[in-house]
Amino acid sequence: MQNDLLLKALRGEKVDRPPVWMMRQAGRYLPEYQVLRKKYSFFERVETPELAAEITLQPIDRFGPDAAIIFSDILVIPQALGFEVTMNEGEGPRLPNPVRTADQAFAVQIPDVVHHLHYVMEAIRITRERLAGRATMIGFAGAPWTILCYMVEGKGSKDFSRVKQFCYTEPEAARHLLDVITKTTITYLKAQISAGAQTVQVFDSWAGLLGPEDFSEWAFPYLKEISDAITEAPVILYPKGSWYALERLSIKTTAAAIGIDWTVSPEYARNATRNEITLQGNFDPSKLMLPPNEIKSGVKRMIDRFGTQRYIVNLGHGILPNIPVDNARAFIDAVKEYR
Amino acid sequence: MQNDLLLKALRGEKVDRPPVWMMRQAGRYLPEYQVLRKKYSFFERVETPELAAEITLQPIDRFGPDAAIIFSDILVIPQALGFEVTMNEGEGPRLPNPVRTADQAFAVQIPDVVHHLHYVMEAIRITRERLAGRATMIGFAGAPWTILCYMVEGKGSKDFSRVKQFCYTEPEAARHLLDVITKTTITYLKAQISAGAQTVQVFDSWAGLLGPEDFSEWAFPYLKEISDAITEAPVILYPKGSWYALERLSIKTTAAAIGIDWTVSPEYARNATRNEITLQGNFDPSKLMLPPNEIKSGVKRMIDRFGTQRYIVNLGHGILPNIPVDNARAFIDAVKEYR
Repeated sequence: MQNDLLLKALRGEKVDRPPVWMMRQAGRYLPEYQVLRKKYSFFERVETPELAAEITLQPIDRFGPDAAIIFSDILVIPQALGFEVTMNEGEGPRLPNPVRTADQAFAVQIPDVVHHLHYVMEAIRITRERLAGRATMIGFAGAPWTILCYMVEGKGSKDFSRVKQFCYTEPEAARHLLDVITKTTITYLKAQISAGAQTVQVFDSWAGLLGPEDFSEWAFPYLKEISDAITEAPVILYPKGSWYALERLSIKTTAAAIGIDWTVSPEYARNATRNEITLQGNFDPSKLMLPPNEIKSGVKRMIDRFGTQRYIVNLGHGILPNIPVDNARAFIDAVKEYR
Repeated sequence: MQNDLLLKALRGEKVDRPPVWMMRQAGRYLPEYQVLRKKYSFFERVETPELAAEITLQPIDRFGPDAAIIFSDILVIPQALGFEVTMNEGEGPRLPNPVRTADQAFAVQIPDVVHHLHYVMEAIRITRERLAGRATMIGFAGAPWTILCYMVEGKGSKDFSRVKQFCYTEPEAARHLLDVITKTTITYLKAQISAGAQTVQVFDSWAGLLGPEDFSEWAFPYLKEISDAITEAPVILYPKGSWYALERLSIKTTAAAIGIDWTVSPEYARNATRNEITLQGNFDPSKLMLPPNEIKSGVKRMIDRFGTQRYIVNLGHGILPNIPVDNARAFIDAVKEYR
């Protein structure tokens, strides 16, 4: 058995129905994940290949989506760059010693990322084997702008004014960091592909904090550099909030697909990308709180609007922790039942 | 002396240069505000007409912008509806007893808002008199969707999943609350105009959390009801994040102007609104951390792109607390020096 729906959609080949997976599908809303969460710390789960593989496979065994995304975190890159990252359940990630000066930025150098993050590659190897073709294996990394946000702010933020201030007042230092993150990420994603990832997604979760001109300067070049450098497998770019960049990303990068959030209508997205690229998304994660039958009709309507070809059904952002399992299942089932 | 630049721009009349003011210009970044902040609590400042007027006038005396927006808070409406609101400096507003059930929602009824919030009208009266024509007096309120967010969530949120869940699972109760908020807000804004406000702005700070369809259901009808009901003065709608709604808001409401955030390019905004409505915005507040000369060139470029007519220079969101006073001044001066 070989489920290649996702790869077909990424290559623009004809499919009988669109493939489906859910961002953060391996994680917080699943009871079997909660069991492991009580026994192991967050980074124990991430850094133990057996555990990461087990968590990655949990939603596959339960719902049978068309893709498995490796259980990991975008902040493993700051870790590989020598930064401490703490994760206290309930308060989100923290970098206790963020970058605050140009000197601190210039001190950051490209690490041996494959050595530092060998456990991710091992987790991918184990998962791919256990998938046995049931679903496509997805690797991932954070986009340079989003990683820079965390490295400078030290945590999530309402306005990310500190990282913007850093870019405006220390542009050379910011560009150095973005360059180091980009090069490191390229090596990291290629290693994931060598280990078994069949496609990779780049999460620019904070891209939408940037206006169009700042996006051109601080986000776009690095997304392009990554997608152009990864020739071994298709690349999915997910620039959350950057609706204004869809045209540019689809035309001026070699990305195979673009993930969009729920503020972008299917019609706008298809039009902006000239119907020429695969789109992924964009069900509002909050709508998984609707009753299952309404989730199903919402998913059907969404597919009707995007069309079945060059389309990957997904949420517009990660699944929320309090979603009932039956509602997550309804989302996946709606795609499989699509007529 | 009568500075009517803002009113002219709102009416689409010819101006020699566009008017300018800054969202949250009365407040946190000003040293003279900090003096009052140490002496009086947040709600003492809001509820004492003399203090609110003094704070409103501080940026006028200092920088001479073309408009003064009354110092107040959007959460006075939940207060008038009987909800406790606490404001602990540094953590943002809280409603300790938010709406969590349909019964709680249906218990909320239209209050005598003019009685409850008489101090706002008094502050507007005092301010208008002391302005003596130097600047246009702006009143404001929160948009119903944004007020509902606070009333259900009880505080700011990353994903506002609780208020969305409430709308999805208790739509009638949510619509009742939105209706009560809307009716109350209309009466409140009309009272502000009677007291001296020459235009009013409606802040839909959380509109961008909604996808286009949810915006149509949970935000748009109430924005339209308010703007259509206010015939006594021009209305400015500020739907932060809802780029996709600019066309609808400009065509299907009687609003005089739409405020836009910095993710929307001037060209997109002009095109979406068919060059037929006054636009307000949209300098990225973080860019006030640039050196003053770069702020000035940025503002000039922004005016060049929006054009000088049917345009109100402003930030794309509120000014940040850590902006140097000279940088705020550079923003205002850049407009006055525009050639």
